[in-house]
Amino acid sequence: MDYNTRALELHKKHMGKLAVASLTTVTSKEDLSTIYTPGVAAVSKAIGEDKSLARTLTMKGRTVAIVSDGSAILGLGNLGPEAAMPVMEGKAVLFKELAGVDAIPLCIDTQDTEEIITFVKQIAPSFGGVNLEDISAPRCFEIERRLKAELDIPIFHDDQHGTATVVLAGLLNSLKLVGKSIDTISVVINGAGAAGIAIAKLLIHAGVQHLILCDSKGIISKGRDGLNSDKEAMLESTNLSNMTGGLHDALQKSDVFIGVSAGDILKAADIETMNTDAIVLAMANPTPEIMPEEALKGGAKVVGTGRSDFPNQVNNALVFPGLFKGALASGSKDITTTHLTKAAQYLADLVEAPTTGQILPDVLDPRVADAVAKAFE
Amino acid sequence: MDYNTRALELHKKHMGKLAVASLTTVTSKEDLSTIYTPGVAAVSKAIGEDKSLARTLTMKGRTVAIVSDGSAILGLGNLGPEAAMPVMEGKAVLFKELAGVDAIPLCIDTQDTEEIITFVKQIAPSFGGVNLEDISAPRCFEIERRLKAELDIPIFHDDQHGTATVVLAGLLNSLKLVGKSIDTISVVINGAGAAGIAIAKLLIHAGVQHLILCDSKGIISKGRDGLNSDKEAMLESTNLSNMTGGLHDALQKSDVFIGVSAGDILKAADIETMNTDAIVLAMANPTPEIMPEEALKGGAKVVGTGRSDFPNQVNNALVFPGLFKGALASGSKDITTTHLTKAAQYLADLVEAPTTGQILPDVLDPRVADAVAKAFE
Repeated sequence: MDYNTRALELHKKHMGKLAVASLTTVTSKEDLSTIYTPGVAAVSKAIGEDKSLARTLTMKGRTVAIVSDGSAILGLGNLGPEAAMPVMEGKAVLFKELAGVDAIPLCIDTQDTEEIITFVKQIAPSFGGVNLEDISAPRCFEIERRLKAELDIPIFHDDQHGTATVVLAGLLNSLKLVGKSIDTISVVINGAGAAGIAIAKLLIHAGVQHLILCDSKGIISKGRDGLNSDKEAMLESTNLSNMTGGLHDALQKSDVFIGVSAGDILKAADIETMNTDAIVLAMANPTPEIMPEEALKGGAKVVGTGRSDFPNQVNNALVFPGLFKGALASGSKDITTTHLTKAAQYLADLVEAPTTGQILPDVLDPRVADAVAKAFE
Repeated sequence: MDYNTRALELHKKHMGKLAVASLTTVTSKEDLSTIYTPGVAAVSKAIGEDKSLARTLTMKGRTVAIVSDGSAILGLGNLGPEAAMPVMEGKAVLFKELAGVDAIPLCIDTQDTEEIITFVKQIAPSFGGVNLEDISAPRCFEIERRLKAELDIPIFHDDQHGTATVVLAGLLNSLKLVGKSIDTISVVINGAGAAGIAIAKLLIHAGVQHLILCDSKGIISKGRDGLNSDKEAMLESTNLSNMTGGLHDALQKSDVFIGVSAGDILKAADIETMNTDAIVLAMANPTPEIMPEEALKGGAKVVGTGRSDFPNQVNNALVFPGLFKGALASGSKDITTTHLTKAAQYLADLVEAPTTGQILPDVLDPRVADAVAKAFE
């Protein structure tokens, strides 16, 4: 049975895949008076007097809201909140099974920036953190920026920072394999939406000095018409020589290609124009920017994709469960670039001897969540 | 250990009492591709093409949101959303353990009527129903009215209708014990907030013809100063002889006293002024309007309270889990007065031979949820 049929059948059988569970029994009058009235009043009263107790006396302390407006579901586009539910339930299952974190999908019926911000502020008392998901750029930037400033719980847009963190981890181990240093490599990122911009920022924070960002119109350069403010802002730290042209121009003599764009846009001949021992992380889904075989033919040394059926799956699921596990356990009010950088390093370190066939740990490796969570120690 | 200490310790031990659980295993690449990418895309796509499939392919079809603004928590008052969490988690545990319904607490940081309405409309795609809880009157009326009109999933304010349903059930069995008929009795309800008004409406719908509603200023009568519009509207069907005065005046020659007000406001002497074989349901928490012993001394035949440590606990937990179980299973778009009346009847019928010591089934009676759910058949 192919994975589509399998998925449809499983979702039909269970009505989705996430449920709630009681942590206590309800089999006696004593149970009732402990978990509900009258005993529960003592707990409410205590929190009424000191709101910070919600973190230790309610599920808030261990629960994450996964908020999506369904505007950018996987590679499927804007299908709305109902269609986002299967993805968010899936994330919640991964949160629970990979890191023991309770997470609840909230797919909402608005795509208005201000309304989404208001919504998240309204639910903040019930949750220890918020994972924003599949909200399209550029709204996702403003939403995350504002919420980070206005709330005192971690706000994390996984499409940006989960992706960036796992890319950095994969890059760190790839560099070991090719014997290059992060501060001398030249990196090309194709795709300047949520993921592309976040990857660029994190790589620069981690030491990358030569980075070119491309979008569907080519290299993002000073003076190019119609750049939005987020792309414009990236010119302060990228493309410092102000190269112009297309993706193919950017790739020449570069060391690393990172694709978060569209399928099947590169050929072996493009990889051949890169420096020797090129690193290619082609993460478009379901079809990568270049198929691994083709990239290797062009001389790439390390190739990763977003897919589970090729080696080196560059998968956010390596990051978000452990990151929130660490954030919640530490009581951190934010998830910062420093946390992401540390998480990437600890994730990379889990692979003791990276090979071209394994630059990242397996998603199911039980050590992953705790390694990533260490970023908050 | 008293129930307060027990409750505080339990909530601290577990960080609240509700968790999420995966309905599938995540132990293989095949699992990952079924519950998450790439397989999940087929499920999202199917729902994107037909939103109604969200009811069968996601947790929406079996999940209720418990929404509270923390403005009227139990008898504790307006302690805010964080302090409401223990109560809402408790309700979610009861939903799950008593009826197998998945429910998620959403305690929100706004007490503005319009904002609460907007909030609930925003989360509607993710849920099969909404239980409004501990939202103070009169805002709760407007919020419920608007949401029932504007959404196509069941909206249910438990403080109103859960309470009204269990009171009607208890009354039906009490009437059997005293040999009186619902259409000839005279009923006095003390408390004209959310619960009092809903009880009055449901009892009238069930056949009560003589009903007087009192608030803290006494009998609600035509021409009384300062009545809000909800109390004013009740004068079309209550106090038809336009009696004026206080609760004590209303009680004279009445058959049934229903208290949803404040503790310790009646004495045996007040019950003595009622008709013989009076029915007293004194549900103020934690202290009833009159203690059972005192009511019996005044000649009451049947006495119920909201407490688990006296006989005849009149408890919403007999109603809300089964009601949503039935509503979700049937796909009903609403919970109507007809559903509530049927639910009360089926609940009453579970007690084959009512006695003055048992007018209602036990909350832990495993037959309760299905009996109440039958209201949707």
